[in-house]
Amino acid sequence: MATRGTRDLVVFLCTGRCGANVRFVRAKGDEDVVVKILFCGICHSDLSTIKNEWGNAKYPVVPGHEIVGVVAEVGSSVARFTAGDTVGVGYIASTCRACANCRDGFENYCAGLVPSFNAALPDGATVHGGFSEMAVVNQRYVVRIPGGGGGASPAPLDRLAPLLCAGVTVYCPMRRLGLDSPGVHLGVAGLGGLGHLAVKFGKAFGVKVTVISTSPWKEAEAVERFGADAFLLSTNAEQMKAAAGTMDGIIDTVSAAHDLTPLITLLRTHGKLVPVGSPGKPVQLALYPLQSGGKSVAGSMIGGMRDTQEMVDFAVEHGVAAEVEVIGMEDVNGAMERLQKGDVRYRFVIDVANTMARAR
Amino acid sequence: MATRGTRDLVVFLCTGRCGANVRFVRAKGDEDVVVKILFCGICHSDLSTIKNEWGNAKYPVVPGHEIVGVVAEVGSSVARFTAGDTVGVGYIASTCRACANCRDGFENYCAGLVPSFNAALPDGATVHGGFSEMAVVNQRYVVRIPGGGGGASPAPLDRLAPLLCAGVTVYCPMRRLGLDSPGVHLGVAGLGGLGHLAVKFGKAFGVKVTVISTSPWKEAEAVERFGADAFLLSTNAEQMKAAAGTMDGIIDTVSAAHDLTPLITLLRTHGKLVPVGSPGKPVQLALYPLQSGGKSVAGSMIGGMRDTQEMVDFAVEHGVAAEVEVIGMEDVNGAMERLQKGDVRYRFVIDVANTMARAR
Repeated sequence: MATRGTRDLVVFLCTGRCGANVRFVRAKGDEDVVVKILFCGICHSDLSTIKNEWGNAKYPVVPGHEIVGVVAEVGSSVARFTAGDTVGVGYIASTCRACANCRDGFENYCAGLVPSFNAALPDGATVHGGFSEMAVVNQRYVVRIPGGGGGASPAPLDRLAPLLCAGVTVYCPMRRLGLDSPGVHLGVAGLGGLGHLAVKFGKAFGVKVTVISTSPWKEAEAVERFGADAFLLSTNAEQMKAAAGTMDGIIDTVSAAHDLTPLITLLRTHGKLVPVGSPGKPVQLALYPLQSGGKSVAGSMIGGMRDTQEMVDFAVEHGVAAEVEVIGMEDVNGAMERLQKGDVRYRFVIDVANTMARAR
Repeated sequence: MATRGTRDLVVFLCTGRCGANVRFVRAKGDEDVVVKILFCGICHSDLSTIKNEWGNAKYPVVPGHEIVGVVAEVGSSVARFTAGDTVGVGYIASTCRACANCRDGFENYCAGLVPSFNAALPDGATVHGGFSEMAVVNQRYVVRIPGGGGGASPAPLDRLAPLLCAGVTVYCPMRRLGLDSPGVHLGVAGLGGLGHLAVKFGKAFGVKVTVISTSPWKEAEAVERFGADAFLLSTNAEQMKAAAGTMDGIIDTVSAAHDLTPLITLLRTHGKLVPVGSPGKPVQLALYPLQSGGKSVAGSMIGGMRDTQEMVDFAVEHGVAAEVEVIGMEDVNGAMERLQKGDVRYRFVIDVANTMARAR
């Protein structure tokens, strides 16, 4: 099951059962949770990393940071989790735990953040991602997936996996910037993995949601399937003009480099544009459209651990979950090719546990 | 005294006393205040307009929108002002008075805003600026300059004139974005007409102020003259690196197009960069530095009338006033040439009334 070291091929880990002597997953420490991975979403940044688009790939790369699994073991100092718990792991594997960001619950902005894949811990241990049978994660960066008795039924776990990165990426700025209550008009630019979750969270918050897209066929998806209130074809100048100055905020999920001005024009006074894509090169920003409405371009990147737990709890309570195409490990390279072309509705999720079971 | 119609020459108005039959200043309406102009500051946008840098000059241009004067007459419906009042007029001559912005005190963002120079009112009347003996202004866009008996002594009126545009331009974002209380670390990029007022307002708010400049000689000005807490030479990579992640907000007064990333790097998590200059062409914006700290680029343009009055009251109470070079009307074209080269400490102000008196 392991394919190691070749660029642009996704590497899987089977952590010791494949006959190889190399152990990719680090030894369990006192504060660690050992997670048996059930599902792992595929995020565009996994693709960017294996292709070394950001110049930081450490081959062999094992991607994956939208992990849902079951706790297999815990370290001696772990009190928050116990074997059998259903948990999630997202983008963060480690932070400094001492800075103001870590103290304030914004670990996502800690200068010492170590991602949960393609990275190394301060002690030198390699951190590989969730395209793997197991993950060893410090308890601080593990969230609980609520479910079972009592409240609302949780969505199937495969559909919750993408929340750990895509979900929190759109949820946090909506919360922090006040785009989360009735009366707000939210724009969502791009209806892909992030965008469709932004629509779902928006509707769960009770805000008016307008999807902005270059693809006419996404209108039916946006409105009929996801319950968006309106659809705006961004190539239609008349539609764009009619919608100018109407939105309190826009979650801009478009990852290609693009001019921000048409979206800024859609904002009303003091509106906020939140680009969450990673174009990889600078964008052009005309200042006057921003200044003449007191508008902002607000950066946001994933979320802190407190916010991630809150997001998962909210999603389970309100039935927010991703639309997914579940694949086996053997299909992952094909899925990456489709992802490159934007051909996925709306998130690939790897059924890790069943693939591993079949392989035995 | 009037020089009319020639590009790049500043036009002055003497409104009827020069022997010309043309009246540039419109007839007084019921809601109008007739202001005898005492002083008028020279803003960089006056220069940009007479040079038609923004392509919207309506020659003959009479610039000027930092006006301090005395009420000469009032229309029949004017209750807020009476002859003899000391008043200020800024950038706004008219707005729609019906939209949400106007209702909420953000007339500065009204789509129907008519500037106080180089413009026309909805009824077609031409609006000329403050390089003139008189101005006729709707009472809604006139603010009171407090002073006389009782409280703190107001600064000389020549030094208050630049507050009507430069002052409110830096004051409003500091207020709105929470950069106005002790504990805040404020950066001020550029120490010119706007920048030196940002430092002064910052110190009056009790915040820590660091001036960021490419000019080493401005350190003494910033620290010794204006009381800034620190100075950062932006061409010094070590200084910039040491200051990374330390500022809650930056008022960026640099008007030339520039890369925003070095300033964004100075911000701490959730920090806000407020570019108030008008580079005239788009700037490059790298999204990752913004995203990886939850930082924002926040637009802001002058202020609404309520905020403008609040700013003037605050300035008078706290002794905030511009450093000015007072000139006569006859020196204005030379002043414009010096302004073009950035050679002014820190704002030119025309002594309109005395020039007119000398001319008689």
